[in-house]
Amino acid sequence: MDRLLVTTTEREQMVNITHSVQAMIRSKRWINGTMKLFCPHTTASLTFTEGNDPAVGRDFLGALTRSIPYGGGWNHSGNAEAHVKSALVGHNVEIFVERGQILFGSWQGVFFCEFDGPRPREVWVKWFGC
Amino acid sequence: MDRLLVTTTEREQMVNITHSVQAMIRSKRWINGTMKLFCPHTTASLTFTEGNDPAVGRDFLGALTRSIPYGGGWNHSGNAEAHVKSALVGHNVEIFVERGQILFGSWQGVFFCEFDGPRPREVWVKWFGC
Amino acid sequence: MDRLLVTTTEREQMVNITHSVQAMIRSKRWINGTMKLFCPHTTASLTFTEGNDPAVGRDFLGALTRSIPYGGGWNHSGNAEAHVKSALVGHNVEIFVERGQILFGSWQGVFFCEFDGPRPREVWVKWFGC
Repeated sequence: MDRLLVTTTEREQMVNITHSVQAMIRSKRWINGTMKLFCPHTTASLTFTEGNDPAVGRDFLGALTRSIPYGGGWNHSGNAEAHVKSALVGHNVEIFVERGQILFGSWQGVFFCEFDGPRPREVWVKWFGC
Repeated sequence: MDRLLVTTTEREQMVNITHSVQAMIRSKRWINGTMKLFCPHTTASLTFTEGNDPAVGRDFLGALTRSIPYGGGWNHSGNAEAHVKSALVGHNVEIFVERGQILFGSWQGVFFCEFDGPRPREVWVKWFGC
Repeated sequence: MDRLLVTTTEREQMVNITHSVQAMIRSKRWINGTMKLFCPHTTASLTFTEGNDPAVGRDFLGALTRSIPYGGGWNHSGNAEAHVKSALVGHNVEIFVERGQILFGSWQGVFFCEFDGPRPREVWVKWFGC
């Protein structure tokens, strides 16, 4: 297993990790296969979204908070709403790779979703060649 | 990598692609393994749901729009709400295959979720035998 | 394909299946690889969340029901809201395994999410060594 380190700088943040993922593929010399990313945190997630306009990430975080608000009314004390967001958005993403390049649609990026930062975080990685 | 083409005909639409997926398995002569489907779009997703009653798909789209409404209040201009839905529902699904057949529960189908159509769309596919 | 049996005891319930998953790894003598879990039900899901405080699971179920309420207003009759929750939370999770042990973050557990129980349920499992 390999690790990508992500240092978040805000309470809630969408961090575009596409460049770090591509750099890992290059440094490991992975050519054809699939790269599995796993988020080992219960108040963070991984997802794909539009990588060009950071407003999309703010809209995503804002929409989640409208449905899953901060503050009272939770059973778990402290960061309950961050746990709920994390369980909903999910922890596994998988990226197809060919000829050493990520296969993404034109606008796609892969994002680390921080719901309870700022913190040092990790993304765990496994590679399966094919 | 292989491709499934999906032509959506409405702004928002749940397209049951189960038959196309099974046809690809047959034409490729895939027998035992796992089929990875990836949605390369930032305003569409993939998921599993009830394949017999189309009302379920309408309920799914309706529930998303109640929480993530059209119209004003977004930072990204245009189709922000479609990006939010796409990032929430997700882009990776994986289907177990044995003896050339999809392994699904009795009521399951695999669906392409269109949030900003109508458009020609693709689903990207990788096969891992076992 | 292997199966884990889960008997749910409530209408909505988060069942921590981490111990059953680890027991399967041990009994199958799986050492290094990735374990794919699939939920073959359209009114249930799989996800990761905090495994120590059961209040987190209650908060997750409560937040989903606030956005996706019981009762009228659905097109599908009966358990529409359970189908919507299931399609949103998802059916595939994947667990990294090394030296026969699940690789999880400190607080993580893997959960079966029941949205229309109580019922006998299954989780389907495929192992890919590496």
